[in-house]
Formats: sequence, structure tokens, C-alpha cells
Amino acid sequence: MSKADKRNKFLAVFERIREELIVHMKSENMPEDAVTWFNENLIYNVPGGKLNRGISVVDSVAILLNRPLTDDEYFKAALLGWCIELLQAFFLVSDDMMDGSISRRGQPCWYRVPDVKGLGKVHNIAINDAFILEGAIYHLLKSHFRRESYYVDLLELFQEVTYKTEMGQLVDLITAPEDNIDIRKYNIDKHTFIVRYKTAYYSFYLSTLEPYKEADRILIPMGEFFQVQDDYLDYHGTEEEIGKIGTDIIDGKCSWCVCTALAYGSDAQKQLLFEHYGKKGADQAIWEQAVKDMYNDEQGLNIPKRYQEYSEKAVSEINAMIDQVPEPGAQDKIKGDRLRRDVFRAFLSKITDRKA
Amino acid sequence: MSKADKRNKFLAVFERIREELIVHMKSENMPEDAVTWFNENLIYNVPGGKLNRGISVVDSVAILLNRPLTDDEYFKAALLGWCIELLQAFFLVSDDMMDGSISRRGQPCWYRVPDVKGLGKVHNIAINDAFILEGAIYHLLKSHFRRESYYVDLLELFQEVTYKTEMGQLVDLITAPEDNIDIRKYNIDKHTFIVRYKTAYYSFYLSTLEPYKEADRILIPMGEFFQVQDDYLDYHGTEEEIGKIGTDIIDGKCSWCVCTALAYGSDAQKQLLFEHYGKKGADQAIWEQAVKDMYNDEQGLNIPKRYQEYSEKAVSEINAMIDQVPEPGAQDKIKGDRLRRDVFRAFLSKITDRKA
Repeated sequence: MSKADKRNKFLAVFERIREELIVHMKSENMPEDAVTWFNENLIYNVPGGKLNRGISVVDSVAILLNRPLTDDEYFKAALLGWCIELLQAFFLVSDDMMDGSISRRGQPCWYRVPDVKGLGKVHNIAINDAFILEGAIYHLLKSHFRRESYYVDLLELFQEVTYKTEMGQLVDLITAPEDNIDIRKYNIDKHTFIVRYKTAYYSFYLSTLEPYKEADRILIPMGEFFQVQDDYLDYHGTEEEIGKIGTDIIDGKCSWCVCTALAYGSDAQKQLLFEHYGKKGADQAIWEQAVKDMYNDEQGLNIPKRYQEYSEKAVSEINAMIDQVPEPGAQDKIKGDRLRRDVFRAFLSKITDRKA
Repeated sequence: MSKADKRNKFLAVFERIREELIVHMKSENMPEDAVTWFNENLIYNVPGGKLNRGISVVDSVAILLNRPLTDDEYFKAALLGWCIELLQAFFLVSDDMMDGSISRRGQPCWYRVPDVKGLGKVHNIAINDAFILEGAIYHLLKSHFRRESYYVDLLELFQEVTYKTEMGQLVDLITAPEDNIDIRKYNIDKHTFIVRYKTAYYSFYLSTLEPYKEADRILIPMGEFFQVQDDYLDYHGTEEEIGKIGTDIIDGKCSWCVCTALAYGSDAQKQLLFEHYGKKGADQAIWEQAVKDMYNDEQGLNIPKRYQEYSEKAVSEINAMIDQVPEPGAQDKIKGDRLRRDVFRAFLSKITDRKA
């Protein structure tokens, strides 16, 4: 099946889920205008992204079962995929409010929509809209998985990942508040915590839907690597490669690059960062270039070389961990060892192949 | 035990819970400044209220068991009570942001604290702070109830109540947006939906921790009655009685009083409401008084008489429902019929006796 077909099949399930959520609201006698609002919230915020996380769930289940899924299996796997997309939508709608962002996925951020529509200052309803997206997850899990033996594991998995992501967001917001940048607070340990908690759990760990030890041990480093890649591409990728112009240096982000520079740079280099990193103004392009020159310097910091080393080490460590996934026990009838490893390899190749 | 002793005993459990949550964050290697922030979030937002909801859980368990609780039973009941208080804190921190409120429980609203401390515009971190309070509930439930047969029921109960409360908040925000009052949208059905979903579920239903049919059937009307009382007291209570000056008329709130006036008033009376209800300005005190005079008119709308009738009918219906709680079956060894009824009567007397 082509990538577009896969995506369309997955999107068709969203229509069923949306319908189900709307029917539920009506059955609770929610007034019509509120039902309409909820419907718009779902359509605007849930299906518009790349859907990698959600579709990965379907892929993982198919690899694990090692055969085409029945219609019912497909629907249930896709529904779990949409629960991850709902969780992501919950985070994105609220993150955009916390960051004061302007646009998301090529459209105005949801909290700005009342403005855009000329409805005045009702922005903050978006806080509750985010909550409802989260609440819908548990309503769906209850409707479709209540009778399954793993139901409680699913509930705990979503709750644990949500809590961890919120922990990561807290550290991120305190370490690098948008309007009060102090890069003296930055270091690799904090960077690791942030990327691990804020991104890796919900983006990688959750997609396997398997809270077994190997998943944690392998996928979290994979998620960290993914985020470091992101940080590096923001500085080093061209606009054609990453589809946007990187702004981490001007925005003063707690990126892998600056943490590495702070860890290995000389006092003079650190001084340059303290003075120019995350500073906005008429000269910001000059300051940004000065930081980039420092990162680029082949005789000095040489961030590209350090990234190359980091990247090779990370991939080889992850591969070694995948190879160590234990042989399946006699009790483990369905999920063979090879299949399990294939799940992880599928994830890793998605990352190592990516350009943006 | 005196009311103050009961409260102090309950508060002592909060200290244990707070400690446990902090230890967990440290064990996850959260940076020190973020742990401190989380600790302040807990202290500032969780224990400062009347704690009625939380203490009701302990009371309900004691009535149901019909004997003093062991230390372990007390701790577990109180922990569930604190989970309700955490849920309440999650709602209040976020509601205050959505309503643009100034103070709560005699202190500045949490989202305004950075301002108060001179930390600049980091208000919006309070959105994530609210999430973490919610996330902590499920972390605690997992730590303490994972092995109990009713664990999954607890998870579902909290999730269901959370979702319903968010549905109520959505309807409230759409029906009566702070800065765009249109009382033509108000009616008793919407009022009932809002008070039922936004308040009754988490304030009453949840405290019994028993999702059995009687609880739903009895406690939700009780919660509605409680909120109607609240609306009535806002208009009719004196400052000594309710500890504050009511502002619902000036703020244009979708209150039981205005919905009743819109349902039973003449065209001229409705016209007066359309013109003066929820209008702010130099003459607001005069307009408020005009509305109050209309409510008061013994020959006309006579809201006090209508409230009296509503209130008597509500209490007698609730009592009739309590009397109909079925005889316990042979399988129901612990919870006798009388005890169950006592749980509901304890709730009702707390409401009918209240002044504010």
C-alpha cells in the first residue's frame, strides 16, 4: 500500500472516531452550539499533522502479528494510533498557548482562532479545549478496550506518558522561558531530561503500546537521538532540507548544540554565547552568524564533527540494544524475537533516513 | 473529633502525599529548580480550600464500614480525598486563567504569581502546572491502589468525572463568555447542564467513590440543588451570610435566578434584563438594583418564593430517592441499606444546613 493510501485509510478511521465522540456528546444532551465547537476543535487540531506517531501503531501491530490485520484489528490499532494523535493535539494546543506561538501546521494556532474569526478575547477557552482532547482518549479507550485483559495497562501507559511529558514541559519552561533567556542555566543533563520527558516518551515509547523493559531501554534513547537530530538540523540544515529556517539561536533555545558548546567551549567562546545567544534586535542576524561561525570552526568547537560522532555512537548503541532483545520464552507464542526486533528496526530506520 | 481536628488529621496526610510526589520527581532526576517549582505548585494550590470534598470521602468510608477506620484505611480514604482535591486544584488553576480571575482562596491566582513575584510574563506555565496536578492523581492511584480489585473502577471514575466537568466548562464558556454576555442564549436547560456537568459530578458524585446507579441518581440532583442554592444566595444572601458580595447580576452570570426570570417574566421584564443584566459601567449599581427589585417583587416574579418552592420540592424529591435505596442483597455483606442511606443523608444535611 502506498504511503498516501496508508494515510487515507488511517484518516478514514478518524471520521468514525469523531462521529462517535460527537454522538456521545449529543447523547449527554450537550447544547448544539457546544457540540459544534467540540467538533471544530477535533477537526482543527487532531488530524492535520504528519500522523507518524499514529500510523506507527498500526505498523507495529502488523509487524508483531506478522500478517495482514483483519478489519477489526486494523480499526482497534488505528484507534490507539488516534489516541496518541489526540494526546499530541492536547499537548500542541496547550504548548502553543504557553509559548505564545502564532501558527501550527500551516494554520493559525487554535487559541488564536477566535481572534482570527473576529470573536474577540475568548482565547482562553482553548485551555479547556485542550483538556477535552485529553479526556476523549479515556472515553475511547473505555468504549473499545474495556473488556480486554490489557485495558488497565493501556490506561496506565497513557497516564504515565502524559505525566512524564508534563514533567518535561515544566523543566523546559523553567529552563528556557521564552522571554527570560538565561543560557547559564543550560547544560547537557537538563537537555537530556527535557528531550527525554517532553518528546521521547510520547513520540516513541507510546507508539509500541508495550510497557515492557526493552521498549523503554531502546526507544527512549532513540527518541533522544531524534530530538538531538532536530536540534542539529535547526542549525545545520538548509531551508530545502528541513522545510523551514532554523531560529533556535535567535530564540535562545536549550538545544543540543548550545549545551555542547557550553560544555566544551573555552571561556571566551562561552562569553560570546552569553552575549549573543538568544538576543533579539536589529543585529540579530550578525549575532546568529557569529554563533554559527563558532559552531562551524573546524579547528575549534566543530559541532558538525561532534554531531557526527554522537550520531554514529547513538545508532550503534541502539543497534546493539536491539540485537540484545532476548530470545522469546515458551510462553511468548505470538511475538517472536525477530518480529520484536523488527519493530525497533522499523523505528530506527524512520529516524536515520530522515532529512527533516 | 472536632471539625478542626478532623481537618488537621486530613492535612497531615497531604504532607505525606506531597513528600511522596516530590521524592518521585527527584528519583526521575528532575532538576532541582523544577522540583522546587512543583512543590510550590502543590502547596499553593491544593490544600488551601475548605476541603469539604476530600473530607467527605473519609466520612463516607467511615459511615459505610460503620466503625472507626484503621490507620491504613484512614490513609487510603484520605489519599482518595486528596485525589479529589488535586482534581479540584487542576480545575481551579485553569478556570482562573480562563476567567481572568484575580484572587482565589484569599491569595492571588496561581497564574498571577510570577507577576506578583516580579518574574515577568511567565503566566502561561500555569497551564502546565494545572496538568501536572491532574497527572499526579493517576500517579498516586497507581502507587496505592494498583493491587486492589476496584483499581480500574477508580481510574474510570476519575476520568469520567474529569471529562464531564470539562464538558460543563465548555458549555459555560460558550454560553456566558466573560466579555461577550448575551443572555438571550440563557435558559434553564443550559443552566441545568452547566451545573450538573461543571460542578455536580466532581463535587458530589465523586466523593462517594461509588459509581453505582443510586449514587448517580441521587447525588447529581443534590449537586444541582447545591449550585442553585449558590446562585440564589449570590442574589439574596447578605454579605454576613455568604462572606462576599454577590456579583452575578453585574457579571451577567448564567444563574438560576436569571434563567427563571427569563422563563417566567413578561416581555417587558425580559426587556429590562436584556438592557441591564450583565452591563458594567458608571450606572451598574442602579441597573443591578433594578434587576433585584424585579426579582424581589412579591406581586410579580417573586424569585424568593419560587426559590422556596424549588428548594422544598428538591429536598423532598431527594429524600424520597434516598428512602427508595433498595434493600441490600445477600451478596452485599458490608454495606447495609441503612448505612448507604446514611451516606446520602450526611451529604444532604451538609447542604440544607449551609448558609454560605
